[in-house]
Amino acid sequence: MAQSQAQATTQVVANLQAEVNRLKHELETMQVADQIPSAGQTCTIADYLLERLVQLKVTDIFGVPGDFNLGFLDYIESHPKLEWAGNCNELNAAYAADGYARVKEGSLGVVVTTFGVGELSATNGIAGAFSERVPVLHIAGVPSTAQQKNKPMLHHTLGDGRFDAYHQAAQQFVISHASLQDKSTAAAEIDRLLTECVTLARPVYLMLPTDLVHERIPTKRLQTPLNIEPPQNDPEIESFVLNEIIKLIEEAERDVVILVDACAIRHNVKKEVFEFAERTHFPVYSTPMGKTAIPEDYERYGGIYVGTISRPEVKAKVESAKLLISVGGLKSDFNTGNFTYEIPTTRTVELHSDHTRIRFAAYHGIGMKRLLPKLTHRMQPFREDAKAIEVPKFTLPVPQENNDTISHLWLWPRVGQFFRKGDVIVAETGTSSFGILDVPLPGGSVFVSQILWGSIGWTVGSTLGAAIAAREIGLSRVILFIGDGSIQLTVQELSAMIRSGVKPIIFLLNNSGYTIERYLHGEKARYNDVANWKWTKLLETMGGVEGETCQSYTVKTKDELSQLLDNAEFAKADKIQLVEMLMEMHDAPRALKVQAELSGKANKYVSMGVNTANDTL
Amino acid sequence: MAQSQAQATTQVVANLQAEVNRLKHELETMQVADQIPSAGQTCTIADYLLERLVQLKVTDIFGVPGDFNLGFLDYIESHPKLEWAGNCNELNAAYAADGYARVKEGSLGVVVTTFGVGELSATNGIAGAFSERVPVLHIAGVPSTAQQKNKPMLHHTLGDGRFDAYHQAAQQFVISHASLQDKSTAAAEIDRLLTECVTLARPVYLMLPTDLVHERIPTKRLQTPLNIEPPQNDPEIESFVLNEIIKLIEEAERDVVILVDACAIRHNVKKEVFEFAERTHFPVYSTPMGKTAIPEDYERYGGIYVGTISRPEVKAKVESAKLLISVGGLKSDFNTGNFTYEIPTTRTVELHSDHTRIRFAAYHGIGMKRLLPKLTHRMQPFREDAKAIEVPKFTLPVPQENNDTISHLWLWPRVGQFFRKGDVIVAETGTSSFGILDVPLPGGSVFVSQILWGSIGWTVGSTLGAAIAAREIGLSRVILFIGDGSIQLTVQELSAMIRSGVKPIIFLLNNSGYTIERYLHGEKARYNDVANWKWTKLLETMGGVEGETCQSYTVKTKDELSQLLDNAEFAKADKIQLVEMLMEMHDAPRALKVQAELSGKANKYVSMGVNTANDTL
Repeated sequence: MAQSQAQATTQVVANLQAEVNRLKHELETMQVADQIPSAGQTCTIADYLLERLVQLKVTDIFGVPGDFNLGFLDYIESHPKLEWAGNCNELNAAYAADGYARVKEGSLGVVVTTFGVGELSATNGIAGAFSERVPVLHIAGVPSTAQQKNKPMLHHTLGDGRFDAYHQAAQQFVISHASLQDKSTAAAEIDRLLTECVTLARPVYLMLPTDLVHERIPTKRLQTPLNIEPPQNDPEIESFVLNEIIKLIEEAERDVVILVDACAIRHNVKKEVFEFAERTHFPVYSTPMGKTAIPEDYERYGGIYVGTISRPEVKAKVESAKLLISVGGLKSDFNTGNFTYEIPTTRTVELHSDHTRIRFAAYHGIGMKRLLPKLTHRMQPFREDAKAIEVPKFTLPVPQENNDTISHLWLWPRVGQFFRKGDVIVAETGTSSFGILDVPLPGGSVFVSQILWGSIGWTVGSTLGAAIAAREIGLSRVILFIGDGSIQLTVQELSAMIRSGVKPIIFLLNNSGYTIERYLHGEKARYNDVANWKWTKLLETMGGVEGETCQSYTVKTKDELSQLLDNAEFAKADKIQLVEMLMEMHDAPRALKVQAELSGKANKYVSMGVNTANDTL
Repeated sequence: MAQSQAQATTQVVANLQAEVNRLKHELETMQVADQIPSAGQTCTIADYLLERLVQLKVTDIFGVPGDFNLGFLDYIESHPKLEWAGNCNELNAAYAADGYARVKEGSLGVVVTTFGVGELSATNGIAGAFSERVPVLHIAGVPSTAQQKNKPMLHHTLGDGRFDAYHQAAQQFVISHASLQDKSTAAAEIDRLLTECVTLARPVYLMLPTDLVHERIPTKRLQTPLNIEPPQNDPEIESFVLNEIIKLIEEAERDVVILVDACAIRHNVKKEVFEFAERTHFPVYSTPMGKTAIPEDYERYGGIYVGTISRPEVKAKVESAKLLISVGGLKSDFNTGNFTYEIPTTRTVELHSDHTRIRFAAYHGIGMKRLLPKLTHRMQPFREDAKAIEVPKFTLPVPQENNDTISHLWLWPRVGQFFRKGDVIVAETGTSSFGILDVPLPGGSVFVSQILWGSIGWTVGSTLGAAIAAREIGLSRVILFIGDGSIQLTVQELSAMIRSGVKPIIFLLNNSGYTIERYLHGEKARYNDVANWKWTKLLETMGGVEGETCQSYTVKTKDELSQLLDNAEFAKADKIQLVEMLMEMHDAPRALKVQAELSGKANKYVSMGVNTANDTL
């Protein structure tokens, strides 16, 4: 009886929510219509595209000029609401667009490159956005439609007339793509790409020929904003799914755990999952890729679950729960402690953006954005019971060590004390991304890392994008942790940071090479060495004015670093700052050591021809 | 009568040449068999591959470590005849392999990357090698064969189980590719790839799984060196073709011109074409991409032909000749003055690596490497006649200017006086590649540029590779010209130069941004600006010791530059040196100004929907 009442209420709420969404959409439509040219007018395809980006809250566009995109760049440069963030190279530009999209949730990142030489340099950045589910629009300025037909041997071509080769390659790494060839379909193609980019949280690829940039098309479509809301779930299936989940929760009595992962962030259900957690008081944990999806200072939050690599109390609590509700799961090796979850499928519910899994059953088309609020609404009866379940306190005290050396064991808890609300904390793949896992971050901070794709050097570009986005949406400081090996891949983007006036703090772990690789293989191999640079000269060399627009430091001891962290002037972050921290070559954070052991085991078996990686997808 | 005698002699020579080749091959086989393990033995697939590379005269391998290639890197690091040239990122590594292959003619460049994140970053570099016909082997270290079958969600994957996506993309940019899956076919696959790489002068792609690296296979195949000689031409067709060419030459009386292009270098006929020229005394010209294929101080050499952009006397001579023999032609826009050749096909013979064109007729399978010596042999009767044809003297005097500013008009002839025999001269796409065209380079010097692909930043990586190759084969100095815009894309590779001990001289044209783009479009646009760096701090910041391992200079006037060029200590090039030259933002070399005018016209028409580019392929 209580249950059918609850169901009825859920339905009412769902209906109201739908009505709210419809009204919001209508309101937005009117606001947009207010700003743009009236129905009978025309605009260039370039302006059409840019207007759509503005509607999607894009403020900054990344990229590098090249002769097939210069015409389009004119439109960006003269646009009143858009900034051109010129990058030093295209890979860094793609990374920046990715970082921007991650921080500016609900919007997208945009990168503009030129035909062939430019777009291909961005490939790794776009593939990374695909892998990690980040909405990025890649616009390649390409030869005119006439040239594409006649195929002259232009510079930036392969010399054999294959003008579609880059498009062919790009398709592997995007969810959707279009080669504009005709002004009559251009607007629809642009709208399709942008909608899929944002709703599916994946990169898309657009070929924009030099001639079509200037072609005029009707503005009429612009009066209807793109519908980027997730689709409604089928009410009958959704109702069934809700009942099934409720039943499992009831059977589990109060012993339910919520595990938040990457796609909770990418598909914008942070708010919904937090409401669910608050209402039920079920303990919440996060995966590495889900870090900060739930405020880490939330009283019912227990820290990071990552299989065998988890802290023992977290592992025990998560794996002994009678039911695990996974939200936006992405079970990659480094996100699961090398596939070491010990949670039977019979005790698992998985909520995804476009489907739901209950034990072994898949319910396609039932997405979490619509489902979660309804589930929350029905959870009230469990709250008091759930509260009784103990959640391990997520803390990391600074250890006492008998030496001056900045060790990983000491470093991460110590910088943990430096973070504050609103910080964006970026950790490079390697010692940094493993080290930061154990650090509880303040509520309202944002964690940015690339744990599945794991392209070293990525954070330099993405920090630029993240910092520009953070400035736009009023977040506080941007703080990057990166090693001396990784920063060399993409170092020139420090110049773009200085030029665009963002002010990140860069903690550079100088540990003489690729430490993560040393842990995986080749501890003493020369190929894991890198050249030692004069790190404190870097900002100045790349355009900063030391003491004015930039400031560099070297710290060799715990005391020196502590003093710097406690210095209010430093903490204010009113200029770009780089802190070189001298560390031991063979030191590494706890989590990396465990991961390396697990990978080592896997590699050993692999070389015997046996595959040990459990595919837990 | 004389003719049939000549034909008979040609046949005798051809037979002798074939015998010489056969004996050489046999000798090499014995030498190789001497060095390698005896027939019954086995070696690992890694060692098999490396032994093949050594046979092909590879000495240095480029790349970046990553956990899917570390096992293979162990074999490189411990190999007695190979050096690991660790790069700062994968794009630069691919560029370096390209530069190495260009200077080390007849060998190939090798780049090793890791699965996904590494290999995709190299894409632009590999595509450039395809476009410009450079033999580069791209080895991607990939997950084990078992993992490729079971498809766990490993780091560096797209997260959707598509382990073949990178292979799919790579296929667009290589002439041949292989994904090793089975040790029984591995050796044959490796041999096939290497043979095609070198004989077709194009990049190839090899996926090397972590487990197969260590698998043992028989060494037997290694006793037979790969046959990288071009195939014999069909004697009947070849004889017909020879007669046809001779007939046209006779009809043209003495008025024949030889035009040497890129593929004369790539397909190793520099020697053959020079012998042809010397024997006939026909005037020789070169395209931009063929520059230095013929020694530019050769008395019968008239300079660069590039359509409308040619110096007027060159244009007149080439276009008025009764017959043009083009050797290894590659008619791209920037290589032909935007397709402005005014030479009718009825007056043209084209020699290519795998076919010959006589007027409108194509003779497939008739390659120039075999054809040219026979043609040369039959040319003697024309020598004295041909000598009478005047060849414009290729000189470029230093102009007198009434100011101190380092102008392009003054710069290029002035640095021309600095070059000497055995120099490798690398010019970045842009003001440098256009500026150097008009400079006669000394005999025995090598010109390196990327005129078809034109990826800015390419020369930094390729200078590293070129310098390592130059050191190997005993060439002299390596001299790079690059602008402040371009160097920012790939700047970290200066660090790899310092680390590997090569000592290029880097002339940095500081002209405040992308000057070539300003000429094409957006003269005053902000997107063509770049940040101004402290260029003279760069080498020191990236690991050099100023005054010991590196030296940096700024020159602001003609006098300052002249004094530096005349300084014997500087000219000795015994450490890496960087010369920042302050130049005007809007100054450009003659050839670039003309090219920009032509492109401007083309772009104007393009934006009206009309294609003007003549496809002269």
